[in-house]
Amino acid sequence: MGNDFDFQCQHRVESPPSKPFFKNLGMAVKETLFPDDPFRQFKDQPFSRKCVLGFQYFVPILEWAPRYTFEFFKADLIAGITIASLAVPQGISYAKLANLPPIMGLYTSFVPPLIYAMLGSSRDLAVGTTAIPSLLIASMLGNEVQPAENPKLYVELVLTATLFTGIFQASLGLLRLGFIVDFLSHATIVGYIGGAATVVCLQQMKGILGLVHFTHETDIVEVMKSIFSQTHQWKWQSGVLGCCFLLFLFITKYLSKKKPAFFWMSVTAPLTSVIFGSALVYLTHADKHGVQVIGQLKKGLNPLSFSELSFDSPYLITAIKTGVITGILSLAEGIAVGRSFATLKDYHIDGNKEMLAFGLMNIAGSCTSCYLTSGVFSRTAVSFNAGCKTAMTNIGMAIVVMITLLFFTPLFHYTPLLVLSSIIIAAMIGFVDYEFAIHLWKIDKFDFTVCLSAFIGVVFGSVTIGLVISVGMSLLRILLFVARPRTVVMGNIPNSLSYRSIDQYPTAINVPGIFILRIDSPIYFANASYLRERISRWIDEEEDRLKSSIDIELQYVILDMSAVATTDTSGVSMLEEVKKNMDRRCLQLVLANPGSEVMKKLNRSKLTDIVGQEWIFLTVAEAVYACTFMLHSYKQKAKATENEGSDNNV
Amino acid sequence: MGNDFDFQCQHRVESPPSKPFFKNLGMAVKETLFPDDPFRQFKDQPFSRKCVLGFQYFVPILEWAPRYTFEFFKADLIAGITIASLAVPQGISYAKLANLPPIMGLYTSFVPPLIYAMLGSSRDLAVGTTAIPSLLIASMLGNEVQPAENPKLYVELVLTATLFTGIFQASLGLLRLGFIVDFLSHATIVGYIGGAATVVCLQQMKGILGLVHFTHETDIVEVMKSIFSQTHQWKWQSGVLGCCFLLFLFITKYLSKKKPAFFWMSVTAPLTSVIFGSALVYLTHADKHGVQVIGQLKKGLNPLSFSELSFDSPYLITAIKTGVITGILSLAEGIAVGRSFATLKDYHIDGNKEMLAFGLMNIAGSCTSCYLTSGVFSRTAVSFNAGCKTAMTNIGMAIVVMITLLFFTPLFHYTPLLVLSSIIIAAMIGFVDYEFAIHLWKIDKFDFTVCLSAFIGVVFGSVTIGLVISVGMSLLRILLFVARPRTVVMGNIPNSLSYRSIDQYPTAINVPGIFILRIDSPIYFANASYLRERISRWIDEEEDRLKSSIDIELQYVILDMSAVATTDTSGVSMLEEVKKNMDRRCLQLVLANPGSEVMKKLNRSKLTDIVGQEWIFLTVAEAVYACTFMLHSYKQKAKATENEGSDNNV
Repeated sequence: MGNDFDFQCQHRVESPPSKPFFKNLGMAVKETLFPDDPFRQFKDQPFSRKCVLGFQYFVPILEWAPRYTFEFFKADLIAGITIASLAVPQGISYAKLANLPPIMGLYTSFVPPLIYAMLGSSRDLAVGTTAIPSLLIASMLGNEVQPAENPKLYVELVLTATLFTGIFQASLGLLRLGFIVDFLSHATIVGYIGGAATVVCLQQMKGILGLVHFTHETDIVEVMKSIFSQTHQWKWQSGVLGCCFLLFLFITKYLSKKKPAFFWMSVTAPLTSVIFGSALVYLTHADKHGVQVIGQLKKGLNPLSFSELSFDSPYLITAIKTGVITGILSLAEGIAVGRSFATLKDYHIDGNKEMLAFGLMNIAGSCTSCYLTSGVFSRTAVSFNAGCKTAMTNIGMAIVVMITLLFFTPLFHYTPLLVLSSIIIAAMIGFVDYEFAIHLWKIDKFDFTVCLSAFIGVVFGSVTIGLVISVGMSLLRILLFVARPRTVVMGNIPNSLSYRSIDQYPTAINVPGIFILRIDSPIYFANASYLRERISRWIDEEEDRLKSSIDIELQYVILDMSAVATTDTSGVSMLEEVKKNMDRRCLQLVLANPGSEVMKKLNRSKLTDIVGQEWIFLTVAEAVYACTFMLHSYKQKAKATENEGSDNNV
Repeated sequence: MGNDFDFQCQHRVESPPSKPFFKNLGMAVKETLFPDDPFRQFKDQPFSRKCVLGFQYFVPILEWAPRYTFEFFKADLIAGITIASLAVPQGISYAKLANLPPIMGLYTSFVPPLIYAMLGSSRDLAVGTTAIPSLLIASMLGNEVQPAENPKLYVELVLTATLFTGIFQASLGLLRLGFIVDFLSHATIVGYIGGAATVVCLQQMKGILGLVHFTHETDIVEVMKSIFSQTHQWKWQSGVLGCCFLLFLFITKYLSKKKPAFFWMSVTAPLTSVIFGSALVYLTHADKHGVQVIGQLKKGLNPLSFSELSFDSPYLITAIKTGVITGILSLAEGIAVGRSFATLKDYHIDGNKEMLAFGLMNIAGSCTSCYLTSGVFSRTAVSFNAGCKTAMTNIGMAIVVMITLLFFTPLFHYTPLLVLSSIIIAAMIGFVDYEFAIHLWKIDKFDFTVCLSAFIGVVFGSVTIGLVISVGMSLLRILLFVARPRTVVMGNIPNSLSYRSIDQYPTAINVPGIFILRIDSPIYFANASYLRERISRWIDEEEDRLKSSIDIELQYVILDMSAVATTDTSGVSMLEEVKKNMDRRCLQLVLANPGSEVMKKLNRSKLTDIVGQEWIFLTVAEAVYACTFMLHSYKQKAKATENEGSDNNV
């Protein structure tokens, strides 16, 4: 049969021109670590210019400051003041959430924004404390040290954890490992944040109802038990006031959503609530009647906190763990926020550079009594709406916070905790993004499952359990993707030379005597043995089917390799085994359209010779043409022999 | 421009007929957990037959025993006796390697083979103790309990670890999680085993040189120090004898490799060495002159060891960890061996069923004074060469070992340890597979790196460090594969309708005004943001290139989606963002050949409407045809307007 083969295939499948090993290696490393090609702008520049560009790369303010105009400054200042009115109450609230002294929330809205304004590459991102990492800090470190019993040690631990967050984030950025963040899928993050927001809201019932004793657990069961087991402790004054403020915040939020022109209402509502609430308490002496207040706040700027960083405490491991976990989470959140707004204004954000900026900001923060800082979604959205132009907005905000720290902290003495709780609830409830979950359900059930598991893990377990479940599910998904690729049977689309999946195109027609299979993924060690078994099962099934039909029996198996982008040694030996298996079954293996990586490896392992260069085609159509040609000539020859035989008999 | 569009695309891209949700889910679960479709044979059978088949599925001996002939029995018995002559000295040697009483090696060659003969689905696999897990047990448990100081506790721990190995392996099989083993790539395993073999050989210098004190570390530096720091302790009698035996073993091995007819030489060599060595020591009283011997061995079959399994010891966690790690390693090795020989004889091995068999074998072993058992490469190869037919071979071997246990154990009293060391070295040295490493280097440099790292990790670190490095590298490789897929620029292959990578086919030609990009991987959350950036960078570069040339400017970007097997919600939003980005740049996004999964998700998310159904084509060729058509009509229109303008002017 092989001797008859004189069909000239039209186009030869080529192996790419081979490149020197180190050039290949260099390109692979570049593609992996520098996919955004940050060196592009350095090309063909004189040395001095390269230095300037290098400085500007690491300190973006040097790049845009010379072009900064007074117009920009006005816009940024207005945006800065606007977000400051949000930052002050939020800072105090989230610090309470992390079980830290409220003043630390204000400190954190002062130094880190200054650093970010110099180093950050986003024009819109507003930085500050965020709710989820605050909760995570409280839950992870609170397990080791009770903040109520040992506040000094607890603050030291938080500062140390913040330092490690910074070091971790900065190293990720320097080592260009930013892609680690990509492994937290959007579905995971939404589920996790939704769960955490639910938990945070539930915990605020403590503040709203004026409870003194409350569970340290975060799961819904314990919190509900804690609330309803002490109904006699509920303070009605606190509850009524809390509901009023909540209502006020929700109404302003609703109005500004309805009419974009009213967006200032939802922005100023928190500060208005704080001022109004404090005045109310001060005038009615409600703090004597069950309404808890913040109490004394120190005046003055951030004190230095080098001395409070402790590296020899027995809790160092916990601090490092907390730092790394909150660090990666706040990175994922912060960079996602920055990217979304960058897309709106059509500019590019370098994830690795952002990580470096976040890291340095947290390192500086940990030395100036600040705790973990990240990009805040709500603040950034407000800043964007207020028309911010550059990262200078953060400096505007920092200045307002500085003035507050210097002069106005005593005014917060009478701020009732229930107002802070209302602010947190109003801010958090929007993060329970059920609409996104419905969207996931419609498009991809697996994504929905991942999202829901993360949510349930946080709400019924704890923030840590939720995180483990989320990351586990994300990794499992990737591993499953790789371990179980799809194989697709193809047929000819009538009136065309195209061959496509018969599942997708029910009109596609089988070619008699030929079985066409597409492998829908690179062949790696993780799926090689699965694919080997699966291919052999496909052929078994096809042969079973043909046995019970009148079609001619199977003679050719065409593997369409278009989607096999690359392979490794396991993939090559898998193909070799498939070839052997085919030979034993007296089937001819035909390859269609192997890509450059695959051809390179097939050539190197001499597999092209084993399969036969003449059985490798550029397209499925050409392969089918050649096989049909062979089938016909084979049949004709068989007929001729038969005839000859009968002739002889005659 | 859109109004002019009246080109009728020849073939519509279809979305597959939608299936009910639970049917989809069922199929996905089946494909993931039952890729080999074990239920196929149960289809269309009466209930009683289904029960019989079910029994036969779990206890394969029921299936083949009725067809077992006397011819088979003869062949199996000869093979069984042959491998027993290997199993006895190997059992004793490997038990010494695991720091266990030598008799346990013999016990382990008796009960587990009987179990495997009934439950295993391989016809060739010979089971018994193996070197690498023995070493791993010694290293992991020896860290906690010194076998020399507390032998009873150590044996208890080993038996408990073996029980957990069994439970773990059986659960993997029952839960059909066999694919976990696939994540240890062949390159990793070869590197790891090569490293471990080197370490094992080095440690045998203790036996060969007759040293009494020796390091407990396994890394090459410590072992070398230990050997050369006590040169005055070297026993020359022992050394000379050891070298002689080594030479004898190597020569027989070489001869049987040279001439397959001599294969019995290398098989009987170990037992010959043991007999000759023992006789020599007995006659010359060499045990009084520095040659260490095994000493007293108990007569009798395996004692039951239920009472020695301890679940309340403080070392339980270590036992579980050791059990799980050695379990997964020995599974990977055992199943790989079984599969290789199954491929040679062209039958199929069900990985999950094998895991169940291995697991039950180890559970039974742990109750009868046996330690970890797995499929052994050397023994299986010998059994294959001796012409074994079924798993009955294992029963043959077990009977010989039983006779040995009942009557001949006292004969091993004078067996010198140096003979055992020589046997281990001769067996292990073949596992340092440098030829395979060279093969890896030629075909795939990354695989070579993984292999080398595992080797170096074991040799210079420890077996545990090596394992962590190997698994880490394997996982890293998968994650990198997923996170950094390739994007390929395509051009038209002259005289054809095919479009291919211009890297692979340097003759391929760009189409003016159109940029064709192929995405070479499914779009997942882990690579969505990379791909978004990369696509936009490709277009930037193309526009830069066009600026400096005289070609017409870019108007269409065709994304060839042939290789995008599937996507998730992140992938869908990434495509949406790409579309927005294109719109901003006044480019038209065109999709070619999206697969069924992609089309389904594009439809559900209404992205087909956003991109425009008319901009989705079945093939790149059709897409290019439509775009060129549009380009020309646009140019003609522009020319006509120009002419009209000039006409008016006239």
